[in-house]
Amino acid sequence: MTTSPTPATAAPTAATIRMPSKDTRLCISLAARPSNLGTRFHNFLYAELGLDFLYKAFTTSDLTAAVAGVRALGIRGCSVSMPFKEDCLALVDTVERSAEVIRSVNTIVNDDGHLTASNTDYVAVAQLLREHGVAQDSDFAVCGSGGMAKAVVAALRDGGFERGTVVARNEATGRELAERYGYAWTASLGAARPRLVVNATPVGMAGGAHDTAAADDLPVPGEAVDAAETVFEVVAVPAETPLLRRARERGLRTITGVEVQALQAAAQFERYTGVRPTTEQVRRASEFARS
Amino acid sequence: MTTSPTPATAAPTAATIRMPSKDTRLCISLAARPSNLGTRFHNFLYAELGLDFLYKAFTTSDLTAAVAGVRALGIRGCSVSMPFKEDCLALVDTVERSAEVIRSVNTIVNDDGHLTASNTDYVAVAQLLREHGVAQDSDFAVCGSGGMAKAVVAALRDGGFERGTVVARNEATGRELAERYGYAWTASLGAARPRLVVNATPVGMAGGAHDTAAADDLPVPGEAVDAAETVFEVVAVPAETPLLRRARERGLRTITGVEVQALQAAAQFERYTGVRPTTEQVRRASEFARS
Repeated sequence: MTTSPTPATAAPTAATIRMPSKDTRLCISLAARPSNLGTRFHNFLYAELGLDFLYKAFTTSDLTAAVAGVRALGIRGCSVSMPFKEDCLALVDTVERSAEVIRSVNTIVNDDGHLTASNTDYVAVAQLLREHGVAQDSDFAVCGSGGMAKAVVAALRDGGFERGTVVARNEATGRELAERYGYAWTASLGAARPRLVVNATPVGMAGGAHDTAAADDLPVPGEAVDAAETVFEVVAVPAETPLLRRARERGLRTITGVEVQALQAAAQFERYTGVRPTTEQVRRASEFARS
Repeated sequence: MTTSPTPATAAPTAATIRMPSKDTRLCISLAARPSNLGTRFHNFLYAELGLDFLYKAFTTSDLTAAVAGVRALGIRGCSVSMPFKEDCLALVDTVERSAEVIRSVNTIVNDDGHLTASNTDYVAVAQLLREHGVAQDSDFAVCGSGGMAKAVVAALRDGGFERGTVVARNEATGRELAERYGYAWTASLGAARPRLVVNATPVGMAGGAHDTAAADDLPVPGEAVDAAETVFEVVAVPAETPLLRRARERGLRTITGVEVQALQAAAQFERYTGVRPTTEQVRRASEFARS
């Protein structure tokens, strides 16, 4: 983020955290392929805010036992990534609306053994659509039909966007997602040129699972990017995907996966700790997490 | 330990540990009333030896789910304290002899989902009896019939001590323990004056569960302490119990709970990490843990 207008105050350099004690609260993440983003983001803010918490990424081959372990060990919070987001619904005690509407969990909060699931991806996407001033009468295309696509489509629906298309090669999941919210489905964008283009697929992701796609691939034809007003990328690693690069070169409004990641992590942070970090703290934690 | 002859080199001051990553291995403890001893001991040595591990104490009200969580989350090691030591036997895949002989677990190692239980209290007690040169023909009294008492009695049996008494107000557990190893049971020591006196009860423990006993109580009559050659205290907090104080004032040979704690923790450390710390490192970690 060398172009950031923010003064380079207190550059994140923390390589250490306070030594835990028996009273330190642990938060974890569960993902098939854990990254260091959450671990660095949360631990940075714990240090910054002087909170007696600790965060650590995990994977598991037994989600039911892992979530039972979260409950039994009093692990305070658990962030959930692919492929566990749907299966968590059956393992918790309360499902908040953010997770209920999209049948997808990315956050579990443990209150003395009572597990509450929510989806801060949905919360973050909805907030970013508002903050960036994307007009509700924009027609949109959302590429993808997985967990993030669900969060995006639901946030668009709840944000008052009435005309849109889900673009997904998987007809079963794509059509189901589109029809649940009253939108159209298509296998490919074709000649359509929507004002809002959202990428909720792994295309452009570093080390992504889409092994048939080249790293410079776009999720839609380049002409569709050029014709858009707003491009919303949910891929967070790398920060600059081919889609975002093209959109910026054309001077389009962009909403980035880095923003989604930081906002949803900040929302998780607040649910786990009860403390709301400032925008500047979130920005610095996000920068540290990606460094 | 102001009387320690060891030079005060590199006094432990670490208040921080390296920031964990997704690859950091977590070790935990499970106890009804967690202390900070293990958390500080292990984290100190991780920092000292540059190991990418992290240690944190936990409690639980659901041991089965907690151990299932250890397995499912890939938590590398789990130290087990009261009241979970017996119930763990049924929850693991392999029970080593040290835990089998006393039907009590204080250590679980997780090798890719395969859980192996052992008892490093037993290992440490046996080692200390040898190192301190306690004569095998000493008659002994072991006060207590809980998990530590089992470790002590089994270590005495395996160390060749043939004449001894288990002193326990609880006849059922006391008699069972004594008779399993061919020793006598008694509810109180009475006029007996054994050469080796072992306290494996909470008497003398800071904040202990024995709410009917005063903090300056002894587990046996003072005259029995005075008549002994060797006093073996398993209480580790405080370092100086009334029993140890009296034994030292009389110039008796003493074996301390601090020694047991440090040795058994070092044995756990080696099982979890594959690295054997030096005696000096263990001493400093133990000193740090208690500071």
